[in-house]
Amino acid sequence: MNNSPAAASSSAPPSPASAHPLLITDFLFRARDMFGDKEIVDHVDGAEVFRYSYRDYADRVLRLASALVASGVRPGDRVGTLAWNHRRHLELYLAVPLAGAVLHTINIRLAPDEIAYIVDHADDTMIFADPSLEHLLSVARSQRSDMPVVPIDADAGSPIDGPSLDSMIASAEPLASPAARADDDLAVLCYTSGTTGAPKGVGYSHKSLYLHTMAACLADGHAISERDRVLLVVPMFHANAWGVPFAALMSGASQILPGPHPTPGQIAGIIAAEQVTYTGMVPTVAVDLVAHARGSGTGLSSLRALVLGGSTPTLGLIRDLEELGIPVFQGWGMTEISPMATFSRPPASTDDDPERRWAYIRKQGRLLPGLQWKLVDEDGRIMPHDGISRGEILIRGPWVATGYYRADHPDKFDDGWLRTGDIGVIDEHGCLTIVDRTKDLIKSGGEWISSVALEEALIEHPVVHEAAVVSVPHPRWQERPVAYVVGDHDLDVDEVRAELAERVPRWWVPELIVAVDRLPRTSVGKLDKRTLREQAAGTPDLWEPTTAADSPVPVTHGDS
Amino acid sequence: MNNSPAAASSSAPPSPASAHPLLITDFLFRARDMFGDKEIVDHVDGAEVFRYSYRDYADRVLRLASALVASGVRPGDRVGTLAWNHRRHLELYLAVPLAGAVLHTINIRLAPDEIAYIVDHADDTMIFADPSLEHLLSVARSQRSDMPVVPIDADAGSPIDGPSLDSMIASAEPLASPAARADDDLAVLCYTSGTTGAPKGVGYSHKSLYLHTMAACLADGHAISERDRVLLVVPMFHANAWGVPFAALMSGASQILPGPHPTPGQIAGIIAAEQVTYTGMVPTVAVDLVAHARGSGTGLSSLRALVLGGSTPTLGLIRDLEELGIPVFQGWGMTEISPMATFSRPPASTDDDPERRWAYIRKQGRLLPGLQWKLVDEDGRIMPHDGISRGEILIRGPWVATGYYRADHPDKFDDGWLRTGDIGVIDEHGCLTIVDRTKDLIKSGGEWISSVALEEALIEHPVVHEAAVVSVPHPRWQERPVAYVVGDHDLDVDEVRAELAERVPRWWVPELIVAVDRLPRTSVGKLDKRTLREQAAGTPDLWEPTTAADSPVPVTHGDS
Repeated sequence: MNNSPAAASSSAPPSPASAHPLLITDFLFRARDMFGDKEIVDHVDGAEVFRYSYRDYADRVLRLASALVASGVRPGDRVGTLAWNHRRHLELYLAVPLAGAVLHTINIRLAPDEIAYIVDHADDTMIFADPSLEHLLSVARSQRSDMPVVPIDADAGSPIDGPSLDSMIASAEPLASPAARADDDLAVLCYTSGTTGAPKGVGYSHKSLYLHTMAACLADGHAISERDRVLLVVPMFHANAWGVPFAALMSGASQILPGPHPTPGQIAGIIAAEQVTYTGMVPTVAVDLVAHARGSGTGLSSLRALVLGGSTPTLGLIRDLEELGIPVFQGWGMTEISPMATFSRPPASTDDDPERRWAYIRKQGRLLPGLQWKLVDEDGRIMPHDGISRGEILIRGPWVATGYYRADHPDKFDDGWLRTGDIGVIDEHGCLTIVDRTKDLIKSGGEWISSVALEEALIEHPVVHEAAVVSVPHPRWQERPVAYVVGDHDLDVDEVRAELAERVPRWWVPELIVAVDRLPRTSVGKLDKRTLREQAAGTPDLWEPTTAADSPVPVTHGDS
Repeated sequence: MNNSPAAASSSAPPSPASAHPLLITDFLFRARDMFGDKEIVDHVDGAEVFRYSYRDYADRVLRLASALVASGVRPGDRVGTLAWNHRRHLELYLAVPLAGAVLHTINIRLAPDEIAYIVDHADDTMIFADPSLEHLLSVARSQRSDMPVVPIDADAGSPIDGPSLDSMIASAEPLASPAARADDDLAVLCYTSGTTGAPKGVGYSHKSLYLHTMAACLADGHAISERDRVLLVVPMFHANAWGVPFAALMSGASQILPGPHPTPGQIAGIIAAEQVTYTGMVPTVAVDLVAHARGSGTGLSSLRALVLGGSTPTLGLIRDLEELGIPVFQGWGMTEISPMATFSRPPASTDDDPERRWAYIRKQGRLLPGLQWKLVDEDGRIMPHDGISRGEILIRGPWVATGYYRADHPDKFDDGWLRTGDIGVIDEHGCLTIVDRTKDLIKSGGEWISSVALEEALIEHPVVHEAAVVSVPHPRWQERPVAYVVGDHDLDVDEVRAELAERVPRWWVPELIVAVDRLPRTSVGKLDKRTLREQAAGTPDLWEPTTAADSPVPVTHGDS
């Protein structure tokens, strides 16, 4: 029917979508030219220490970028940061990509030898470090003696010689024009604080981060807007603080940075003093925030959104936050997804139905536009989105990693899809509920036991506050669950076990329930199940208490 | 400093942003899988005639797509539509791209020979037409006798033989998998209803439309969300109805379609009956809507946003809409920008200051993220964003045309930038105000006269409701303004002229002020200045009333 398809296609103009790169450095110019009066505010120990405009911020960033170029940073170089959440870190966030280099945010909660591994793997050409954190570079510096380390804030007194970030800025002119970059070039590099194996680098291209930022500002996403005043509680070394700094720059929201190790009380005080409208944090921090706000009476009602991520919040936490007048949302993602994958925004029909709304928020929510997902069972079969069928969640899209930086991990990627390692169900409205991690599933006598479901069941007991279930190898049943619980002083593990046995299948009841004062956590606040697994496997006489007769698990793979 | 840049870049994983295409056809699957219960509602003559779910919509779309393939449509083919705003048109919106073809929406307000030109230029392989509009294809069909024309709704009775859209769907299975497409491939083609020269085709790629849709759903953009019920007043043949159908599908908003030539009263009735939350329209339609709502008392308060576009709304219209409880916004764009370029969302500081808010809404607003602009004077110099300096607005970005379909118009494009032809000022907050069209500027005796400023000055006169100023060639002064005004019955043009002379420079006063019953408009409701220019130039004895002494225009190019 078409007589000249070739002619038609040859005379088509170049695609604008490909002709014009999407560069995150444009966010800086947008912030300066449209939102020059908006603020960046630095707090330390809960008190304001500095406040300046996006106009002044942009001027410093442009000077810092030209200073980086003058000091030898070349396009594609990795420039490390080892820093808390403060304005100078935010300056590096844009100055490094403007110089054409790759911002490598280093996790400050790692040990010196882990940091040395990462610095070496990334081949960082230069590192900017908070003076209070420079000791973490001891091993890296001994291995890379020619790598410059720049103290971020010289006023704080630095053990390192050489110019500080401020003196670099003071002696530089603003960058005349950003280094030429394609939008597939990397802008940021972040290593996962995975609980298994060596840290793995995830590179974010300009285009990936640009599209991720658009998604963060969707009305049905985090909805960050010009009206917002955002507080960056999530560490800036952790997946770009969920991407919020870029979203704030693009939309013109003011940004408040809480400085080193803010306490829940300081966070509450900053929210009240700065009339913060948006923030995000892991549930454990939110629990402490609620406790502080209740005790102190600090008003947090300026918040239009508190986004929880990192692990599923309890029903109680969501209810507590709403009682304080704070709208709650949940996001789910991971370093490999830049990090946002889903967002849980309750539909209008739950406005007058708190129970349904809370249940909704406890789900991880709908996939953000731009991404695609599928649910795959252990045999590789696609599972339906029926709210019952479980599977590992595989995701792909413009801001989903297709590989690690300078490393092969074919097991994590499947024909362009990221294997998230999370087990979930997706309901008929496209809402995800994470039910487990693949590595936290326990295969006992041919049957799967969900560690997450067991944890939920344990927490239902009135005296149990937190619970973690891990699997340990078992001579007869292949694997068996062991539980660690944090609870009231009078917690009786035998009583907890007996009560649990009435509510879960008999073979789910853990071999061992151990009461502990606190659960180990990773550097970004997640449950450290690796440590617990090692601890459980090393328990003396672990299999003494049970006999085969006590654990009548099925021996075939069934539906039950 | 970097010893192995080549090694680093060669071991980087493929960029996810490039590896995963952004296809608008994914919106269909998103709507089906996440928002299957949301509705599409068809109205005719203001009464509901059909209502179905996105689930059922997707089923019909997938069947229609496979019917298109079966009937010979090949990837890249153009498939025309000549239709009003109704559900079957919305089915074609997705079915044609799913078949891998290009949806070519034809302007139903053009004459048969203009349509024949466009159909031939686009080389359409097939056209779907509303039976009531098929007569518009008379010339095209005589020229392309082998081109199938499919009646969209056979029930309405069609003069055309052959299967209807419904019968195609009835005999087809759902498409098993969409035609493979790269996201730089065209998905939609739309011809501008330009007021000069032949119609020009603008092709939209999948990626362009995907990113445009993300921008439409930003919290600071149109903010279309899952909570919305959108009413498609803007014709679906006009720049994808501003992209709202795609935004609604992506976000899961329900869609209400008003059918053929809805009256203001029908639009008001639909808004009230369907509890519409979002709609967009040109100011002239909104004026009629306000008049109807006031007269009838129809409640329009379900609207959370009414977006005006196409021309600058008057202060009175904005005030009137707010008095009816309707939040008002303004967008600016053009077919070549898919079409959205800016959005005017008042900042929080105007919440309690109506006068400032209205002034803000009258500006065209801030550029959407993803786009870039510059202001260029007639000598090609970049002008500052100071709220005073004027220039033509040049725009580029992922959803801005870089050329026309199968046509060269180098004057419209400048090194990847679109020359919009609009003259504006941009203030220090990045807010655009359009002050003129390049072709509407009047050069009189070496000085520029702004037709828009003259029109604004004329409208300030109490008896003048509408005004249009055009330029006509003048033997002595090169060009001179002529004004057409619509006003009260007792409008006295001599009195209007005398009053105007007190408020504008003397040489701005039009040679001729003509009272008319209505101003001519183009097929999409814009002022048709071409017709007025021709009419003015043909006025007998045009230059009689003035003498050189009456028009003491300067003869040099000055600052005044």
